Amino acid sequence: MEGWRLSCNSKVISDCTVLVPDIASAYKSRMRTADLSSPKEIAIFENTKADLVSSGIHFDNDFLALDVCMEAPTLEDTMPDSERLTWGIQSQIEVENVKIPFCVMKKLASTLRKYDFHVCVKGRHDGDTFHCMEISAPEDTAIVGCAIDIGTTTVTMVLTDLTNGKLLAKGSSGNGQIRYGADVINRIIESGREGGKKKLQDAIIKETLVPIIANLCKTAKVTPASILRLTVGANTTMNHLFLGVDAEPVRMEPYIPSFFNWEGLKAGDLKLPANPLADVVIAPNIGSYVGGDITAGTLASCIWDKDEMSLFIDLGTNGELVFGNRDFLMSCACSAGPAFEGGDISCGMRATDGAVEAAVIDKDTMEPELTVIGDEGQKVVGICGSGIIDIISELYRCGIINAKGLFSREGKRIKRDAHGMGRYVLAFEDESETGREISINEVDIDNFIRAKGAIFSAIDTLLNSVDMTVDMIDKVYVAGGIGSGINMKNAVNIGMFPDVELEKFQYIGNSSLTGAYAMVMSDQAIEKCVEVGANMTYLELSTYPGYMDSFVAACFIPHTDRNLFPNSIQEV
Amino acid sequence: MEGWRLSCNSKVISDCTVLVPDIASAYKSRMRTADLSSPKEIAIFENTKADLVSSGIHFDNDFLALDVCMEAPTLEDTMPDSERLTWGIQSQIEVENVKIPFCVMKKLASTLRKYDFHVCVKGRHDGDTFHCMEISAPEDTAIVGCAIDIGTTTVTMVLTDLTNGKLLAKGSSGNGQIRYGADVINRIIESGREGGKKKLQDAIIKETLVPIIANLCKTAKVTPASILRLTVGANTTMNHLFLGVDAEPVRMEPYIPSFFNWEGLKAGDLKLPANPLADVVIAPNIGSYVGGDITAGTLASCIWDKDEMSLFIDLGTNGELVFGNRDFLMSCACSAGPAFEGGDISCGMRATDGAVEAAVIDKDTMEPELTVIGDEGQKVVGICGSGIIDIISELYRCGIINAKGLFSREGKRIKRDAHGMGRYVLAFEDESETGREISINEVDIDNFIRAKGAIFSAIDTLLNSVDMTVDMIDKVYVAGGIGSGINMKNAVNIGMFPDVELEKFQYIGNSSLTGAYAMVMSDQAIEKCVEVGANMTYLELSTYPGYMDSFVAACFIPHTDRNLFPNSIQEV
Repeated sequence: MEGWRLSCNSKVISDCTVLVPDIASAYKSRMRTADLSSPKEIAIFENTKADLVSSGIHFDNDFLALDVCMEAPTLEDTMPDSERLTWGIQSQIEVENVKIPFCVMKKLASTLRKYDFHVCVKGRHDGDTFHCMEISAPEDTAIVGCAIDIGTTTVTMVLTDLTNGKLLAKGSSGNGQIRYGADVINRIIESGREGGKKKLQDAIIKETLVPIIANLCKTAKVTPASILRLTVGANTTMNHLFLGVDAEPVRMEPYIPSFFNWEGLKAGDLKLPANPLADVVIAPNIGSYVGGDITAGTLASCIWDKDEMSLFIDLGTNGELVFGNRDFLMSCACSAGPAFEGGDISCGMRATDGAVEAAVIDKDTMEPELTVIGDEGQKVVGICGSGIIDIISELYRCGIINAKGLFSREGKRIKRDAHGMGRYVLAFEDESETGREISINEVDIDNFIRAKGAIFSAIDTLLNSVDMTVDMIDKVYVAGGIGSGINMKNAVNIGMFPDVELEKFQYIGNSSLTGAYAMVMSDQAIEKCVEVGANMTYLELSTYPGYMDSFVAACFIPHTDRNLFPNSIQEV
Repeated sequence: MEGWRLSCNSKVISDCTVLVPDIASAYKSRMRTADLSSPKEIAIFENTKADLVSSGIHFDNDFLALDVCMEAPTLEDTMPDSERLTWGIQSQIEVENVKIPFCVMKKLASTLRKYDFHVCVKGRHDGDTFHCMEISAPEDTAIVGCAIDIGTTTVTMVLTDLTNGKLLAKGSSGNGQIRYGADVINRIIESGREGGKKKLQDAIIKETLVPIIANLCKTAKVTPASILRLTVGANTTMNHLFLGVDAEPVRMEPYIPSFFNWEGLKAGDLKLPANPLADVVIAPNIGSYVGGDITAGTLASCIWDKDEMSLFIDLGTNGELVFGNRDFLMSCACSAGPAFEGGDISCGMRATDGAVEAAVIDKDTMEPELTVIGDEGQKVVGICGSGIIDIISELYRCGIINAKGLFSREGKRIKRDAHGMGRYVLAFEDESETGREISINEVDIDNFIRAKGAIFSAIDTLLNSVDMTVDMIDKVYVAGGIGSGINMKNAVNIGMFPDVELEKFQYIGNSSLTGAYAMVMSDQAIEKCVEVGANMTYLELSTYPGYMDSFVAACFIPHTDRNLFPNSIQEV
């Protein structure tokens, strides 16, 4: 194909520019995102909401849709439109001032006349002032919030009815920035080039967010102008690139973001398809590598309201951790890569129909028993995050792979390629939906071991930093795109999570999205999230003594120090 | 020329569309605008400012330019940029909150680093909050206000230093909308057509205001982002077309504007070359045909602060009147046409070099003695507003024209064309600067008589409506584009102004611009202008019994009822 070359057939003989194809759309169908598309996820989400209410976060806000009926003007009643509307609003609610913005003023005369002086006015009731934001047909009464989780790899979003919190639509896709680099560092470098800020911003806004929001509006049958608030849970770099602000200082010593907590962004500033006056509330960052996705997620976890010591783990492209209770919160980040989201895994996919979400392997026959998402008889399409954990744990338990993740048994389901690289076949060509073999190979396993090693060593270091040990953990909240069906026992078995009682683990779904949802619905949640961010201490792992040693030691199944995992199954 | 036809040589035989050439630029050089370009005007302006101060309007505002010096971040001091700036500002002024808007956030990181963390921050200090509006190089400390008078025919503007009120630059041009109609009614009709609102808005904003503001910024050596407030004095229709809001209801019964007083407009809404967050403060309208130019002008006149009965006359494309004192204010509008601004007069021009600004005619020889603006020896180029009044008054006094404005004497300086239409030659071809004859003809005089008749009959009717007579007027303030050199005695002689003692007259220049200037400089002036607008009663002349009769009676020199003008000179 013109301009395309297979890199495996090419030899680089001088400097060259390599354009990687746009794999964002490929990711879209392959990747697992917790986007509230399954009943299980919805149940987790509802559970988190209930916890937030118990912790004193009330799901209410100041947004209103008013049915305003006015007398038509006559030669005897020549009040101008703006005053007429003001009086109409004041007859509905007790306010001293009514603010009419330009976007409403511009269409006031024609809208009033089109609907015979009976309209719906949407806006915010703030103390003694009503801020109009939209004027529409009397029957168009929807007022909508939009909660967005911007991950490095995936973007997930819900529209919610601001009056009752009902989910109106939900959707997700790959982050369009992915063609500029899989990780934040490469994207910052790209953004620092000529025109780079605009390019990266366009990739997330124009290519990613705009189409999703437009789609969700269509699904929910609401106008973009009905979206009166947006909230964003995103890491520090994503927040910077989203706004188009210079992100280089995030990457360069002394690692200074433009902002941690910042108010003042409007949807119109970014040309998002929403009411131009809608606040875009960004969950606060607390460091260069612990951002708003974590403060939003911590908000959702409610660990800030508990006496018990909790560990919050967010598994995304980066892994982030928060440890503490109502008295203190300590956080850090580690570079885990996209393995937990199905990236870096040859047969990785989203947890939709055809995904292996759980697996058991017979130690003797080495035959797998797979749990596949979908109707009875659904054939295998690929493997989602929770399935990968199960498969690796089972391969290790059955002695099919060793502590280094290399295949050490042979059999019908173990294949090797020309270079001797082993793989385990979950579904042969004739067993899969696609006619392709579905398998997991040594590269997949190695990628995953590094990812889980990064997570475990970060947990280890974070606890160390406050002179605590694993047995002091009362509760472990696991969040992120890894799927609702995560088998915590297997995650402990492979040395990904600390070896604590299984009942201490709780999966809380996409907590960044849940936190963003709470913030879009609740003024109190916004305040609390800012407070949580302000009270959180950031530990920079990369410069913390001993972290690298801890990481290297963790890159085995389960760990070089078996004593840390007394309850892990043994390699046979 | 392709597509162009001389209308005098064309016969219309069916429906046709006539495109009138863009005469705005022609107007630009021909028309008289009071744009503070002469020392006399400046003196009047300074006098008005002093009167405002005496009336309790203080010329101060909340805008500030702060010199902010910060420590550069280090690995030990990793405060993000937004907090660093906030602290820097709080070290300069006592404020609890600092609001950083998107336009500042977007360039915060790069600007701080470019200037080594020593910057100028411009913004508004409102109670316990500082609203940042701009961040710039430490030496770029200008904070600027822009006061704009948008007339139907001409646009005038000044840039002022918000710290001390000094005028930084001034400029004017024709209103680019003029090609869509010379009067407001035709422009409203045009705006009601498909795409018309955008067309009319583009004509005033993109074609007229943007180039002037850009020019003034260049002259004043300030950046557009330094313009932190704009104020606009404009009639009701101009205000609607400026905003691009539907103006049809202004024209159609029951004549309802979209707004009288409205806050909430930002420069960014209209894409004006100014700080996008700058408030655009529009002086309030009080009726469909008495707008913000009159409330701003009334503010400048200070008649709202006096016990004495004052008449305020604004001579523009429309003539508007306000009568009253500190207890009541009554206003009305009349359609005078552009004659006072030099329009509709064949040799009309601005009061710049070469303009006849005053004239005396010898009764016997009929030779004129002209006062021409410019250096010693400057030849005549045209006639400005004040010159026209003098010439018509003198022609009438000398019996050269009769009460109907027709030529009744013959002589060297009286010429007639092929149709018998008379004209008086002020300068023959060899006497003028341009080599063209400079004259005033019967059509010019007729246009002017209608204009002055409209003004006088409006004054008459307005006084009538409150059961008052001319002799109860204590003071007459004359404002508008007619020039600083207006000869009040001649204006009375021709029946334009009421026959009161000459010392009661005071010319106050372009009061709409002066009012806008006061508002841009002074928060108090804005409040007062709103108050003045709210307290003003609007009289609709077109439906007022007797107005038309009064107009017809006034279309003579000086009037059909000579008793109204006991001190006018007699026709000989």
